[in-house]
Amino acid sequence: MNVLVLGSGQLAQMMALATKPLNIELRAYDVGSKQVINPLAQDQVFGDLASGIEYADFITAEFEHIEHDVLTLCEASGKLRPTSQSIKTGGDRRLEKQLLAQCQADNAQHIIVEDEQSFNAALKELQLPIILKSALAGYDGKGQWRLKSLDQAPSTWLEIADFFAGSTSEIPQGLVAEQMVPFDREVSLVGMRSATGEIKVYPLTENHHTDGVLSVSLALENEEKLQATALEVFTRLTNTLDYVGTLAIEFFQVGDKLLVNEIAPRVHNSGHWTQQGADTSQFENHIRAVCGLPLGGTELLRPTAMINILGEDSVENDILAIAGVAVHWYGKSKRPGRKMGHINVSANTQEQLQQKLVAVAALLPESAFSDIKAYISNLEC
Amino acid sequence: MNVLVLGSGQLAQMMALATKPLNIELRAYDVGSKQVINPLAQDQVFGDLASGIEYADFITAEFEHIEHDVLTLCEASGKLRPTSQSIKTGGDRRLEKQLLAQCQADNAQHIIVEDEQSFNAALKELQLPIILKSALAGYDGKGQWRLKSLDQAPSTWLEIADFFAGSTSEIPQGLVAEQMVPFDREVSLVGMRSATGEIKVYPLTENHHTDGVLSVSLALENEEKLQATALEVFTRLTNTLDYVGTLAIEFFQVGDKLLVNEIAPRVHNSGHWTQQGADTSQFENHIRAVCGLPLGGTELLRPTAMINILGEDSVENDILAIAGVAVHWYGKSKRPGRKMGHINVSANTQEQLQQKLVAVAALLPESAFSDIKAYISNLEC
Repeated sequence: MNVLVLGSGQLAQMMALATKPLNIELRAYDVGSKQVINPLAQDQVFGDLASGIEYADFITAEFEHIEHDVLTLCEASGKLRPTSQSIKTGGDRRLEKQLLAQCQADNAQHIIVEDEQSFNAALKELQLPIILKSALAGYDGKGQWRLKSLDQAPSTWLEIADFFAGSTSEIPQGLVAEQMVPFDREVSLVGMRSATGEIKVYPLTENHHTDGVLSVSLALENEEKLQATALEVFTRLTNTLDYVGTLAIEFFQVGDKLLVNEIAPRVHNSGHWTQQGADTSQFENHIRAVCGLPLGGTELLRPTAMINILGEDSVENDILAIAGVAVHWYGKSKRPGRKMGHINVSANTQEQLQQKLVAVAALLPESAFSDIKAYISNLEC
Repeated sequence: MNVLVLGSGQLAQMMALATKPLNIELRAYDVGSKQVINPLAQDQVFGDLASGIEYADFITAEFEHIEHDVLTLCEASGKLRPTSQSIKTGGDRRLEKQLLAQCQADNAQHIIVEDEQSFNAALKELQLPIILKSALAGYDGKGQWRLKSLDQAPSTWLEIADFFAGSTSEIPQGLVAEQMVPFDREVSLVGMRSATGEIKVYPLTENHHTDGVLSVSLALENEEKLQATALEVFTRLTNTLDYVGTLAIEFFQVGDKLLVNEIAPRVHNSGHWTQQGADTSQFENHIRAVCGLPLGGTELLRPTAMINILGEDSVENDILAIAGVAVHWYGKSKRPGRKMGHINVSANTQEQLQQKLVAVAALLPESAFSDIKAYISNLEC
């Protein structure tokens, strides 16, 4: 079976590693060079998008910010999974909010901002503090403004107007202005829906962010009620989208309520722990779903967490000596704050997991990992 | 880190898959074409052996039947792990028997046969039945003769003389004549020794063969005494060889005694279950040892078994629907009896493992898997 992945980053690479043993050959479309490459041998170039579409039995995506004409071409081949509409919904917060409304999925109160008038309307209708997020692209904390007092409004609007004017996007940029939710924690649900409508989800994951970027994920146990709530939302969203593949939902947890923060129509950083913590990883299960193969087991095998490696291209080798630790590098060149790899940590009990996380954190350099180290030292697994 | 593997089959491929996440790039020397290739993109050719040696930080091997001048060149670079002597010992039963004698490792009574005179000596000194195994190459049941009565001796000798005459090997062919051992079962130990002498081993594996080829392996639990005996032998052998990397020892179990059948100076088919059943697989741990990285966990995570796929290039997709099943194809072209892939099966309890194995076996075609199906139906995990 041949699969073309739109996008050629670490997610495509991990899909390729996970599914080569299934005799599935993955090629990746690099949106920068507009060439199809081998995600496991990136200097191996196969040709242009048309040849990649021709090659593929199925086409999928590793990210949601893909030019619409690319999606249109892929969809026309009849091979694209999930649908272009699903991918676009993940790439535009306006469409995402429409979907959430359609599915009656709880989320923060919000107003779409596309000009000064709607900006002012947002200030009137929402309570401070407000967070304004760009509708297109700008994940991981970029393209966001926080408004704590009305004094900031004029200068903020000037920045936003600048941002709109500078947009090179093919569709008009906009913002979603959201009332900030005083949440207890951020959790996410990663799961798959097959072409026949079968749904399997992994346990909810607790997520910790550093400067707006995911830095630690922890698979949750004994959260039956919350898990059921999340599964219900997942089911409504993916059925509505007639979704095929892996999808992630980020939630704000407020008491026993889950408010959808955002959805990602793809494998997700908060699901990387499934490489060691579940029978079948999100990467393999995504491609299984896309190729019409049965989904594999998603239960938590044992307590597992993930630590992102941000901005560093090496860690102490002693980390590998801790049993239950798996290091995953992406082979990317070093840049401050860049996702360079991750460390999965598994243990037989939550208590052991905590001890191992502390041991791993102790071996990470203070400079790049101070926030992660602080978070881990306060963890009660 | 760059590693060159001598040999470009499924073992090199699985090493590459296991260690790409560690930012280790593997290239493989194909002994047939004498070219260095990418084991994950086999049409990517890099050059000849000399360029491969130049490229590598470390060199290792996926099999033991490698031309001696290749080993000599690699060893001269100072990068080869394990030593050429270790690899040669695995490739020549005469050297293997010398090593076993040197280490006082129990094994079957035997005589080296290199001409008619030593053949006749073997008939005199050993009790029937006798098995004669070619000293070089000829694993998986090839190049072997069984002598049950002295009547067979003249015709057997003629066949052997023919076999000797037809040898194209660079060193003289020979046989090891062994008194056949009425063993209870065949077990193997797979483990690693690091460059600093650290040793870690996986649990013993029970092995079942079909027509002389491994077909099912089962990781053993609660065999502390046997495990300790095997570990002692492993320690003596690898210390004597000053071994670095993964090594497998196949044993005949007779009561609570273990007789060494043979050793393999490499990752081994009976260790494939470690991909799902241990923290760190034999493939990753082999390369970790070769590269001087700490060894990862080798404990059994949960009951796990492996079924070889021999001579078939597809199985029912329904097998993937059984949680805890992982299918590993090697991407090779189909040939009767050829090792085409394997299926790892894991479960929470031995009882569940047995049920899953029966469920998997029920989905395998009778034609190619009749012996495996019969073996599994009689298993008491």
